Amino acid sequence: MLTNSLDPQTKSATSLPPHDAKARVRQFMQQLQDQITQGLADLDGVESFQEDRWERPEGGGGRSRILREGAVFEQAGVNFSEVWGSHLPPSILVQRPEAEGHSFYATGTSMVLHPRNPYVPTVHINYRYFEAGPVWWFGGGADLTPYYPFAEDAKHFHNTFKQACDAHHPEYYPVFKRWCDEYFYLKHRDETRGIGGLFFDYQHGEGQLYRGPHPDNAAAMYSDSLDRIAPRSWEELFAFVKDCGNAFLPAYIPIVQRRNEIEYGDRQRNFQLYRRGRYVEFNLVYDRGTIFGLQTNGRTESILMSLPPLVRWEYGYQPQPNSPEAELYEIFLKPQDWINWTPSHTEAK
Amino acid sequence: MLTNSLDPQTKSATSLPPHDAKARVRQFMQQLQDQITQGLADLDGVESFQEDRWERPEGGGGRSRILREGAVFEQAGVNFSEVWGSHLPPSILVQRPEAEGHSFYATGTSMVLHPRNPYVPTVHINYRYFEAGPVWWFGGGADLTPYYPFAEDAKHFHNTFKQACDAHHPEYYPVFKRWCDEYFYLKHRDETRGIGGLFFDYQHGEGQLYRGPHPDNAAAMYSDSLDRIAPRSWEELFAFVKDCGNAFLPAYIPIVQRRNEIEYGDRQRNFQLYRRGRYVEFNLVYDRGTIFGLQTNGRTESILMSLPPLVRWEYGYQPQPNSPEAELYEIFLKPQDWINWTPSHTEAK
Repeated sequence: MLTNSLDPQTKSATSLPPHDAKARVRQFMQQLQDQITQGLADLDGVESFQEDRWERPEGGGGRSRILREGAVFEQAGVNFSEVWGSHLPPSILVQRPEAEGHSFYATGTSMVLHPRNPYVPTVHINYRYFEAGPVWWFGGGADLTPYYPFAEDAKHFHNTFKQACDAHHPEYYPVFKRWCDEYFYLKHRDETRGIGGLFFDYQHGEGQLYRGPHPDNAAAMYSDSLDRIAPRSWEELFAFVKDCGNAFLPAYIPIVQRRNEIEYGDRQRNFQLYRRGRYVEFNLVYDRGTIFGLQTNGRTESILMSLPPLVRWEYGYQPQPNSPEAELYEIFLKPQDWINWTPSHTEAK
Repeated sequence: MLTNSLDPQTKSATSLPPHDAKARVRQFMQQLQDQITQGLADLDGVESFQEDRWERPEGGGGRSRILREGAVFEQAGVNFSEVWGSHLPPSILVQRPEAEGHSFYATGTSMVLHPRNPYVPTVHINYRYFEAGPVWWFGGGADLTPYYPFAEDAKHFHNTFKQACDAHHPEYYPVFKRWCDEYFYLKHRDETRGIGGLFFDYQHGEGQLYRGPHPDNAAAMYSDSLDRIAPRSWEELFAFVKDCGNAFLPAYIPIVQRRNEIEYGDRQRNFQLYRRGRYVEFNLVYDRGTIFGLQTNGRTESILMSLPPLVRWEYGYQPQPNSPEAELYEIFLKPQDWINWTPSHTEAK
């Protein structure tokens, strides 16, 4: 699919993927799914994952794994997929016009966890790789969605991914952290989905980290154009994505261990179910992974495995002033510098 | 906003609205909200509606009424709104390019009812009126979403709206019934939302009932082009919309009265909560009223009042063969000729 006949002025040799790129990324994505499902099943201790293997009529398939009604997780879904077809859907072509008229290949792993205890945050990761005609790219990220506010957890989550980033490029964490805040943003609520983490897309070694806000997100919070950085090779980017993927369990497990034994009642459960509604709103209205899946005739049950098992909507809900629920809205659902967070930093707001 | 300087060859005099068009439609939409909330509160017998009046910073406002935790209705939301602004959002301009560059006015009433008893269907209505530069139009409809299959209910609902249609034009019911089946269709599930009813949009008297499937709905079930009909006046269309609006209570109340006393258990409740997930999926992924509201900076709490108070998602759910739940999928979530429905007609499928 990718050849050396590309214009040498715009495509350096380092930007070409190796001949076994697809096989290597696929293997990593499957191994990441294995590593995570093993780690989560060990953590849960009661339930294990069930797997469905599926094929996509237009090409490719996947394996969907779900753990339900566990001790820690009310639902945990971890998907691997590898798909190909004659053309990418419009939602991607608008961002990657070079792929127009070309067939495509895509592989990735995605995960959403819905814990039972409202003090344990929901979390999402997704890593993906695309090839389409003359272009290839990596995308992905990880973001944490707490129901109750613990700055310590936000700081730990961000610190873990910052370390994975810093091993590769000093600009990765600051840029991808901001991109995450911008991407996981519910415009109609004027809220971030949670405390963020990392998000990146269209990383293809051509010396540009960020292309500006997605057209869907008209109220993007960050509009600065970012400087171009030195070209990065396919190998460098793949190594970065692998380190991000491997950072997930160390980023999340300590948070579960700290919060899973906290007692809770109806108030906390009801707030959790209510806040899960925002997850549904984000995934169905804004999320590009969901839209890509539904537009490419993906497996609906696997795509919508991200939706919570039980959800509430409540007209006109407002948190009580000075409550933990109010603190979530006031501090945790707005972009924050979690790495440098201190209690006085929060109080000063 | 509308003048007589329009090209007389394409705009007949009968197509112009009267000078007091906005005031008359607004008054009807408010009266419809009053009539329906009164009828539903009487039916519920326990809870009444609470009203929130709101203003939209860009122009206009509305009154949102909600009844919660009633005897019949777990949640009933009935909205009236009247909004204006400098330009329509892209989702409408793609269908009404004549409105490009013009300010707009829109008023309407919409309603979604989520009953408590799973044997009582969810129902939605929406009627709306737009003016934008040289164009004006009416849109609207009513559709029923049962959880358990009762052909008698489907037939009654369709018959009631057919009578309202037939008093105005013999083509209205067949065309708007088909349009409803096409519009309330979840492509990613290959299911209709329910048993349909009526749906119409862009009714502006210019002799065309139907413009073909909405671009969002690539798998539209009906693609025939419909013949143009004789021009209709603004007065004729307004009278039609009024009769449709007034048909709602007679279409729905007898169904509630027939089903509300049927006993149910966890199985029926769980299936109801699961099926409510489809309502969420439709409204957030496909519904043009929801998208219009969110795109025009509408009042989010009012727009999303359509979402159910409690919802389940369940990975890989399949109804048991030969169960009422399976009959819902096999018969009621596909377009049917409910007017001419007989038991043998169903069995023959």
